[in-house]
Amino acid sequence: MSTEALFAGWIERTEQHLHAALPDPDTAPQRLHQAMRYAALGGGKRMRPLLVRAAGHLFDADPALLDAPASVVELIHAYSLVHDDLPAMDDDDLRRGRPTTHVAFDEATAILAGDALQTRAFELLADAPLPPALAVACLRTLATASGAAGMCGGQALDIDATGRQQPLSDLQRMHALKTGALIRAAVRMGALCGGAGSDDLARLDGFADALGLAFQVRDDILDVEASSEQLGKTAGKDAAQDKSTFPALLGMDGAKARLEALAIDMGDALAPFGPRAGALSALAELAIRRSH
Amino acid sequence: MSTEALFAGWIERTEQHLHAALPDPDTAPQRLHQAMRYAALGGGKRMRPLLVRAAGHLFDADPALLDAPASVVELIHAYSLVHDDLPAMDDDDLRRGRPTTHVAFDEATAILAGDALQTRAFELLADAPLPPALAVACLRTLATASGAAGMCGGQALDIDATGRQQPLSDLQRMHALKTGALIRAAVRMGALCGGAGSDDLARLDGFADALGLAFQVRDDILDVEASSEQLGKTAGKDAAQDKSTFPALLGMDGAKARLEALAIDMGDALAPFGPRAGALSALAELAIRRSH
Repeated sequence: MSTEALFAGWIERTEQHLHAALPDPDTAPQRLHQAMRYAALGGGKRMRPLLVRAAGHLFDADPALLDAPASVVELIHAYSLVHDDLPAMDDDDLRRGRPTTHVAFDEATAILAGDALQTRAFELLADAPLPPALAVACLRTLATASGAAGMCGGQALDIDATGRQQPLSDLQRMHALKTGALIRAAVRMGALCGGAGSDDLARLDGFADALGLAFQVRDDILDVEASSEQLGKTAGKDAAQDKSTFPALLGMDGAKARLEALAIDMGDALAPFGPRAGALSALAELAIRRSH
Repeated sequence: MSTEALFAGWIERTEQHLHAALPDPDTAPQRLHQAMRYAALGGGKRMRPLLVRAAGHLFDADPALLDAPASVVELIHAYSLVHDDLPAMDDDDLRRGRPTTHVAFDEATAILAGDALQTRAFELLADAPLPPALAVACLRTLATASGAAGMCGGQALDIDATGRQQPLSDLQRMHALKTGALIRAAVRMGALCGGAGSDDLARLDGFADALGLAFQVRDDILDVEASSEQLGKTAGKDAAQDKSTFPALLGMDGAKARLEALAIDMGDALAPFGPRAGALSALAELAIRRSH
């Protein structure tokens, strides 16, 4: 099967699982349920669920075991976008080509929808047909990646740094938490569901860390070079908010060279797994070449 | 041991566990960590942790098993207060006799602190020294109680209803979700840690449902009769926001009669457990007689 067909099938399966996992839009409280669905089902590249499934695929994991882990990384990602877009945070009106959740609904509903999406992620994992020890391992992985020592802490560092220049090391640390931690958790949960051993997990952590960073370097480049229409979110925002970025610190050529170096690191990390790592490798390529 | 001494010991143990469970205020991102500690360690009656421990006590549960479940209900409660107090929600400046988190810090930090407190609750349970199947049962119980079908859904119903009168049945349903669900989860997790069977769990659900409702009826009465100083939060707020309350719908005498009827229901639910239910019974009494 081609990688495209494999990914299309995985996305279809993820969409179906997410649809079923989110509360009924016609049951009270309707507005909350509708906002949760709006935030989580509104497109997006589904990169994180694909990473879960690709990492599981590497160890021949039962696809049914991967359904909940794939959905929960997307729910956590969706909740973080809803809250990051709030007026008190990044104050953004446009996301995935549509009004952000607090614009389409209202601020109170957006706060609650984000809260409930986070809760639903943990509930889905707790309810999943996983052996209890595996469920606990996935829950621990997801929680650690999402909280103060992960994604949420990264967003706090990002807010602290807005309006002042950061050194490269601080910028990398911020992104390692803000986007890297959840990407690492996605790969790790997939691998755990396939019964990966500690050596393989460590190798995949290295891959995921490079991928998370590459993802962000590409994001910063696109914020400069692409239009809002291409991105589906406000372009040029980093410069307008005086945020530190890789192109600002390394120059545009330096940022692009960094991206190529990360591509080589990812290739090296996957090499020991042989051809079965093709799906992960294709996702790395997508992250680096993407135009939105 | 007197009930007072028992409760004092349980509160002390809970405070210690919470202190250790929250991130270091001197490690980056400091502001986030400080806000999390401010919100979770700022007093409060610790009613929910006491319920976990009292329900565990009923089945002679190992107190070490109860540490994480006791802390996590408080973390979820604390996160909900931080978000409910936000300007876009109830817009409150005073909580537990101190400025609310978004006043003491800022709005972005308060949103993130609430988010990270929620995550930390699930992480603590996943990390707890519980057998995996028990950990998953507790995680499921907590998540279901906290999300769109529980506390968060109740807050959404509360916001929907602000500014218009609700019938008694809607008011009860809102409170059953907004405060009742987490109280039920507290009792249930304690009982699960003690190995309670399904008949006992069902009996305790009945007790907890009556307790949650009694707690709210008392809250509504205090909002009319007590001062802000006594309450440590803004008094008279329900009337000012034109919220439906039990005194408004039943009259003050009716509300007090309802409270007495709930006290009898709780006594009936606990009767089959005999004298070992004394701690739960004392907590029910506290909820009904409290002056703040």
